[in-house]
Amino acid sequence: MASPSFAGVLVPVLTPFTRSGEPDAGRFISFCRFLLDQGADGLAIFGTTSEANSMSGAERMELLDKLIAAGIPASKLMPGAGACSVSEASTLIKHAIGHGVGGVLMLPPFYYKGMSDDGLYDFFDSVINRVGSAALKIYLYHIPPQTVLGISLDLIGRLVKAFPQTVVGLKDSSGDWKNTAAILENFPGFAVFPGSEVFLLDGLRKGAVGCITASGNVNVPGIRKVYENWQTPQADALQAEITKARMTIQAYPMVPALKRIVAHFHNDPDWAAVRPPMTALTEAQSSALLADLAKIGFTLGERQRQAAE
Amino acid sequence: MASPSFAGVLVPVLTPFTRSGEPDAGRFISFCRFLLDQGADGLAIFGTTSEANSMSGAERMELLDKLIAAGIPASKLMPGAGACSVSEASTLIKHAIGHGVGGVLMLPPFYYKGMSDDGLYDFFDSVINRVGSAALKIYLYHIPPQTVLGISLDLIGRLVKAFPQTVVGLKDSSGDWKNTAAILENFPGFAVFPGSEVFLLDGLRKGAVGCITASGNVNVPGIRKVYENWQTPQADALQAEITKARMTIQAYPMVPALKRIVAHFHNDPDWAAVRPPMTALTEAQSSALLADLAKIGFTLGERQRQAAE
Repeated sequence: MASPSFAGVLVPVLTPFTRSGEPDAGRFISFCRFLLDQGADGLAIFGTTSEANSMSGAERMELLDKLIAAGIPASKLMPGAGACSVSEASTLIKHAIGHGVGGVLMLPPFYYKGMSDDGLYDFFDSVINRVGSAALKIYLYHIPPQTVLGISLDLIGRLVKAFPQTVVGLKDSSGDWKNTAAILENFPGFAVFPGSEVFLLDGLRKGAVGCITASGNVNVPGIRKVYENWQTPQADALQAEITKARMTIQAYPMVPALKRIVAHFHNDPDWAAVRPPMTALTEAQSSALLADLAKIGFTLGERQRQAAE
Repeated sequence: MASPSFAGVLVPVLTPFTRSGEPDAGRFISFCRFLLDQGADGLAIFGTTSEANSMSGAERMELLDKLIAAGIPASKLMPGAGACSVSEASTLIKHAIGHGVGGVLMLPPFYYKGMSDDGLYDFFDSVINRVGSAALKIYLYHIPPQTVLGISLDLIGRLVKAFPQTVVGLKDSSGDWKNTAAILENFPGFAVFPGSEVFLLDGLRKGAVGCITASGNVNVPGIRKVYENWQTPQADALQAEITKARMTIQAYPMVPALKRIVAHFHNDPDWAAVRPPMTALTEAQSSALLADLAKIGFTLGERQRQAAE
């Protein structure tokens, strides 16, 4: 199995939109810089939290072009390549590989339901063949709450066996620790990232290489503390702290809540905008969320607060 | 409410692929001509049965360009404009409207789950505003088995009220007759198409304007007989016949089964190819399907058989 290109705390970066609803490249570049400065080990741009599927392929490619042109290191990027067709997925991946990204995060073809592992294998196989690049590192993206189409242990095994240098890891956003544990047990050396920091410590203890988590957008320092100290006596207390923050945030619709928090702590109200079909938090929800965060003393962490000021 | 542009038996046309997996424009054009010749009242190209989401937007637009260039009347076309982003959906729809199509079939943004009606309303509203054409006729596409994101009665009501000249109809592929009946009761004059001919006669009796059905790919003549004779004493017997054919086919994976039937009756084995993540029927399944069809005397109907010969 190939050495994976990522480990640590990866952030599926929120995508800011302008008042007229267009992707806001300027704010996006600044925010990516900010997250790296905060200690993010990688940026999983164009994930679910990024509202990637609310952008056309062309919009995503243009945003990546601008990010690279602005000097964000390609090796730190793991763009999502979510698409239901082999052709679209291949186009997005070729473009990303052309920029030298560290890897791509790849959804199954999520329009379809009840597909066989043979059919899903064909899908990944076809994309890998079309892209035809030794530089390609795929992280599978298992997120059944969104896709209602999972990536089974058996399918992972077949892909890893057929493409050991290419299929190098997986983000598990099933929210099902048993599934994450089973992947870790079955595929030692495979780079597994739980999709929430709630499972970070349990994951690291069982061989996970980090996490890719939405709340990284507002809490890289806290989450990194667990990553850096997971073998120390403080680990459980540090984990409890980030779990508490996460549970507070996810009591609200996650993406609008995170954008509202960024808007608040970065003093930039326009950050709260989402694209349809998402809706921004109401004023009442926003106030309640910020009050809930204040109650648990959540302040974006020392480094993050300083950088945002 | 605007006069809808379609009524009768519409076919979500299967998309043929070449041996190398590319959309096969030549076979597609011939097959569209064949279906119109068989009596299809409209062609809902780029639907679920068309494996539309297994094609990139660029591939779909190119196929539509070629269909129009080949002389298929645009007024007979209701292309699917399935996309999860306002930007992609708008691009596909502008392109289709530019060709003068009779209408478009529009999915909700299917990557997302549990979205509010407010958010879904925003999605359709944003697309309609971006397209900005009085020529636009939208048929909503309710297919919760695929999207796991439905179009509620309340949302239909809001859209019809806000855009009476634009949101003119709906394809109901819920498979839930109670839902179809409720739409018909609540929105008289709205052009409702059950998504299966199994509900054609019940639908027509309650005000539906026809059906948009996968099995139209292999049984336009049979289905049209019900449409033409629904007020005669033969109606129930004719309906029983097409229901029997449909149930026989849908005992197998629907799209691969339909392609296999086309391959058989058109003496063109290449027609059986599907794109991943679908898989073609096995030889055993194919033989069983054809035997099942022979048992019920299914021969594609007189006109269809002659044309295929």
